[in-house]
Amino acid sequence: MVKASITGSLIGNLLLVLGTAIFTGGARYTTLKFNRSSAQASASTLLLAIIAMTVPALFFQTSPSMRRPAMTEALSLFVSGLMIASYLASLWFALRTHAHLYTIETTVRETNWSIRKAFTILLIATIATAWLSDLLVASIEPVALRLGLTQLFIGVVVLALVGNAAEHTSSIMAAAKNQMDLCLQISIGSATQIAMFVAPALVLISVFFAKPMNLVFNSFELVAIILSVLIVNQVVGDGESNWFEGLQLLLAYGIVAAAYFCMPSSAKENTRPSRTKS
Amino acid sequence: MVKASITGSLIGNLLLVLGTAIFTGGARYTTLKFNRSSAQASASTLLLAIIAMTVPALFFQTSPSMRRPAMTEALSLFVSGLMIASYLASLWFALRTHAHLYTIETTVRETNWSIRKAFTILLIATIATAWLSDLLVASIEPVALRLGLTQLFIGVVVLALVGNAAEHTSSIMAAAKNQMDLCLQISIGSATQIAMFVAPALVLISVFFAKPMNLVFNSFELVAIILSVLIVNQVVGDGESNWFEGLQLLLAYGIVAAAYFCMPSSAKENTRPSRTKS
Amino acid sequence: MVKASITGSLIGNLLLVLGTAIFTGGARYTTLKFNRSSAQASASTLLLAIIAMTVPALFFQTSPSMRRPAMTEALSLFVSGLMIASYLASLWFALRTHAHLYTIETTVRETNWSIRKAFTILLIATIATAWLSDLLVASIEPVALRLGLTQLFIGVVVLALVGNAAEHTSSIMAAAKNQMDLCLQISIGSATQIAMFVAPALVLISVFFAKPMNLVFNSFELVAIILSVLIVNQVVGDGESNWFEGLQLLLAYGIVAAAYFCMPSSAKENTRPSRTKS
Repeated sequence: MVKASITGSLIGNLLLVLGTAIFTGGARYTTLKFNRSSAQASASTLLLAIIAMTVPALFFQTSPSMRRPAMTEALSLFVSGLMIASYLASLWFALRTHAHLYTIETTVRETNWSIRKAFTILLIATIATAWLSDLLVASIEPVALRLGLTQLFIGVVVLALVGNAAEHTSSIMAAAKNQMDLCLQISIGSATQIAMFVAPALVLISVFFAKPMNLVFNSFELVAIILSVLIVNQVVGDGESNWFEGLQLLLAYGIVAAAYFCMPSSAKENTRPSRTKS
Repeated sequence: MVKASITGSLIGNLLLVLGTAIFTGGARYTTLKFNRSSAQASASTLLLAIIAMTVPALFFQTSPSMRRPAMTEALSLFVSGLMIASYLASLWFALRTHAHLYTIETTVRETNWSIRKAFTILLIATIATAWLSDLLVASIEPVALRLGLTQLFIGVVVLALVGNAAEHTSSIMAAAKNQMDLCLQISIGSATQIAMFVAPALVLISVFFAKPMNLVFNSFELVAIILSVLIVNQVVGDGESNWFEGLQLLLAYGIVAAAYFCMPSSAKENTRPSRTKS
Repeated sequence: MVKASITGSLIGNLLLVLGTAIFTGGARYTTLKFNRSSAQASASTLLLAIIAMTVPALFFQTSPSMRRPAMTEALSLFVSGLMIASYLASLWFALRTHAHLYTIETTVRETNWSIRKAFTILLIATIATAWLSDLLVASIEPVALRLGLTQLFIGVVVLALVGNAAEHTSSIMAAAKNQMDLCLQISIGSATQIAMFVAPALVLISVFFAKPMNLVFNSFELVAIILSVLIVNQVVGDGESNWFEGLQLLLAYGIVAAAYFCMPSSAKENTRPSRTKS
């Protein structure tokens, strides 16, 4: 369920939130322009996230037998460490060495937190979100199941919708004011934060629990994430956008959500290596 | 056979037609320039087409058992509806809201058709093409089989060559005059039209027939289309091109065509979900 | 082992060499700029390399049974021929028709060799490298195995590190002087040379030997190469870079290398079609 939420939040932020924002902004302005350098930095971060998520899954699928579960676990932990290192480096990049690329945003937002304070709040917020997410599942599940929705669909689509409501609202408001850099930073920024910080942090923290989580996503999740990243990078890579590109992101989201709607919960191939198996 | 023609027309327009045109134009002019904004709009449309074609195939491959055939059918229909919506939106984009990106072409072509008339003619032409294509198969098949070609090769390569002869000629002529925007609109435009309108229209129409068609392409077709789109987006994405990039598209076509030449007709994994199976 | 070296050299040049160079250069200069047109030409060459490497592998995996081994062999040879044709065309492009894109480099390097002389030296160097590589394996293997490293890891990571030491040093030195065009030409140039010339040349030469080599790479190698190319194209595609993008390439390398470290040597699925098998 946690992995389904991660996939859902990633795809939701990349396709639904960004798509709605670009579509809304594009309905008002013929061309939406944004800073190409910071968009390119996000784009390469998303590609690194893809590599970090694909390599353990592929390792799990192609490497044989006995030593696999332990090795997959070890690889997940190592990759998670690298992802967090990359996330910290991206903060350094955005706040120190290349802060000039992000100045438009910093005038809009409150920025007098120290790095330390910001980091602590980020950590607390992450844990709180995970906890609230659990509460949310517990309360949404009975209703949704009675409506005939599968657990998987709830995890990927419904929870991601509810959980990203804040990003959704603020990024659309930014796009409506033609502040596309702020809009991108919220939507793509949330996606990279989930991929490069929240997911690996959960993997690292989970080693202290009975059932550790790994970074092995199933084929459907991976391909959906990879294709989402490719279309988003295409849309933002040239530094400008319009309503049609926003609509395309929304349609892409519709296609992925429809597939999850049709998919039975058991459809997900088992990606949890059982330690006892052979 | 219909799916083989769709794959063949897509790859043929993207790699062979565009490749020949860029190579020919590039032999005359050092650098071929074109409008980046419209090229980017086509590029994101092609990526959306990839998502629309990959998700049902992946759903079919990864989701298990019983409810699969009916669900795959339903998903195909829904995705086809979204694709046609996107195609109509792209017409609105190109003819109304962002017509200025496409003005070079509209001065060259006849444009005093109403949207309604154009749409009717498009529909008739599509049906007529499908019918002629069938006739063509019937007449080419015996000859080609005697030459030792497989049905699959005929569908993907030979029919696509014959069927796209018009696009081929006019886009090369446009490139030879350095009218690259017209050239791109013909070749990439045909490819997106096939992917976003012809293919989903066939899926939607086929529900009235005994043997409905779905959107599930096999792995080889999908990967060939995905890689074609990636290299085409790379070549046109920067708004300029040259003979070397044209040659690369041609070589990419040669590689894919050679694989189809070697492939026995039965090589295609069965992607038609049998309704009776378990 | 030869294929492992090819994969290792490709990924090593694309991620490790280029990553270190951009990171080093980016530590000194806020923004590293380079010629977009030549970067784009390399990018499309890398995508063509991906197509040339993926199609035979996919053909091997999806086409069934009997005629497969002979057909895969034939397809490998044909594709190898096209790759070498593309490589020769790229020399013509870089040295003749579009030499102006590469002038910065040509002033730095010695260029009074005739094409013929350069080609002969290239051929000799290739053969010599292959031979030295064999010697190297023989000498490194016992030591590395005693350290607990698998043969696969030695082939992909250790040998590639040693074998690309020259590229590594000179491309970092170029980046440190902000000569990014030279740096890219060394790192990406080496990668395209390996993919488009060395690998197909080995396939063509190997037909004279008892155990011919083909172009069929396994899934893990292919996906690692494809993702490496996508992230490199993203990083260089916009004509500028910075330390953060260099770091991301290094982290991507770390992830792939870690997977190879965990992978048992037998993990590679058998991609050599046995001629005797049914």
